Amino acid sequence: MSHAEKKAVVLLSGGLDSATVLAIARRQGYACHALSFDYGQRHSAELAASRRVAQALTVVEHKILKLDLGSIGGSALTDSAIAVPENQEQAGIPVTYVPARNTVFLSLALGWAEVLGAMDIFIGVNAVDYSGYPDCRPEFIQAFEKLANLATRKGVEGERFRVQAPLIDMTKAEIIRTGTELGVDYSLTVSCYQADEQGCACGVCDSCRLRRQGFRAAGVADPTCYRSTK
Amino acid sequence: MSHAEKKAVVLLSGGLDSATVLAIARRQGYACHALSFDYGQRHSAELAASRRVAQALTVVEHKILKLDLGSIGGSALTDSAIAVPENQEQAGIPVTYVPARNTVFLSLALGWAEVLGAMDIFIGVNAVDYSGYPDCRPEFIQAFEKLANLATRKGVEGERFRVQAPLIDMTKAEIIRTGTELGVDYSLTVSCYQADEQGCACGVCDSCRLRRQGFRAAGVADPTCYRSTK
Repeated sequence: MSHAEKKAVVLLSGGLDSATVLAIARRQGYACHALSFDYGQRHSAELAASRRVAQALTVVEHKILKLDLGSIGGSALTDSAIAVPENQEQAGIPVTYVPARNTVFLSLALGWAEVLGAMDIFIGVNAVDYSGYPDCRPEFIQAFEKLANLATRKGVEGERFRVQAPLIDMTKAEIIRTGTELGVDYSLTVSCYQADEQGCACGVCDSCRLRRQGFRAAGVADPTCYRSTK
Repeated sequence: MSHAEKKAVVLLSGGLDSATVLAIARRQGYACHALSFDYGQRHSAELAASRRVAQALTVVEHKILKLDLGSIGGSALTDSAIAVPENQEQAGIPVTYVPARNTVFLSLALGWAEVLGAMDIFIGVNAVDYSGYPDCRPEFIQAFEKLANLATRKGVEGERFRVQAPLIDMTKAEIIRTGTELGVDYSLTVSCYQADEQGCACGVCDSCRLRRQGFRAAGVADPTCYRSTK
């Protein structure tokens, strides 16, 4: 395999962070295989966004795996009985936390990477604005990378999987500036936990607040459609 | 929660090993939540077996999650283009290895455990007869347990997940003797990679060979229906 053809699996949610990660992986020369999940999330506008982003940033392939996390429950993002919080600063881990979500997503990315012969997995986790999700911390990413190399045929054979989390130490504003320099069209992305079918954002959930503040701090015009900015 | 109500998630394939693990967890007093996967495996007779075993060993709940590992490919167990080997001693990792399977299964078990408030996950991996699967080794289990406690809300809050693999150092014969003492009816289980719809085993794949040899070595009558024992 030539250097130009090095492959990566990129977790792509359709949000601002993963679109930026995909642009970073493309800039680094990876042939990118994007992986998204249809996991019973309320915000299915995300999946439409992931398709737009995958096309705009020319991936080799975009796979959307169905995964019934809703039947496990436990999160406001998959369980309609739990309300999405609005306009509140929270202490601790929020109700939008989906139990073990990044562990599950990285596991499936690892399986696909092994089949493809890709040794790099990119994920858009971020420890600065991570909102209290335990599976967005550097120590989680390091532990998963270690596991990956014990869990797999390639690892046993001495090759090394790398879990790349290029946003992990960046603020939202830095992420937006980086993506803007790389030509990411953020109007294609959806961050909102309760976007409507057209992808228009509520403007008031935690994710919208972080996004709006990020554009403001970056000094970049925010192309997002918000239903409310009160 | 009283001691009598301690909960566990038990990965249940419908095979001999996981049935034994479920019996061990029940004997240890756990209220067991069994988790199986409909993952595009060729041997769907396994799923019927998992239902019989879950009922016979009185679990609290048996969840079967659909998971499209077949769309990832790379294994004789999910890809009909790759032949299941028969009657051959193999070197290295066999083609029946499903990339990252135990990582994926444990991740989903972890998510469910967190929702249930269960701190114990049981898995029937076995390092003695493990046939070269990298994700059946003690170091893999230890790495996953470490990851679990970094990945989750409960772990961050200071509780400790345990990944219990009680068969890990046992021979197949020891597993069969243990299960027999605990009253496991092995005629309900299916180990074969290519069982027919009635659950009758081929008798010649790796998994059948290990099973037949195990009953012989244990000195226990083998209740399995084999189509061939050549």
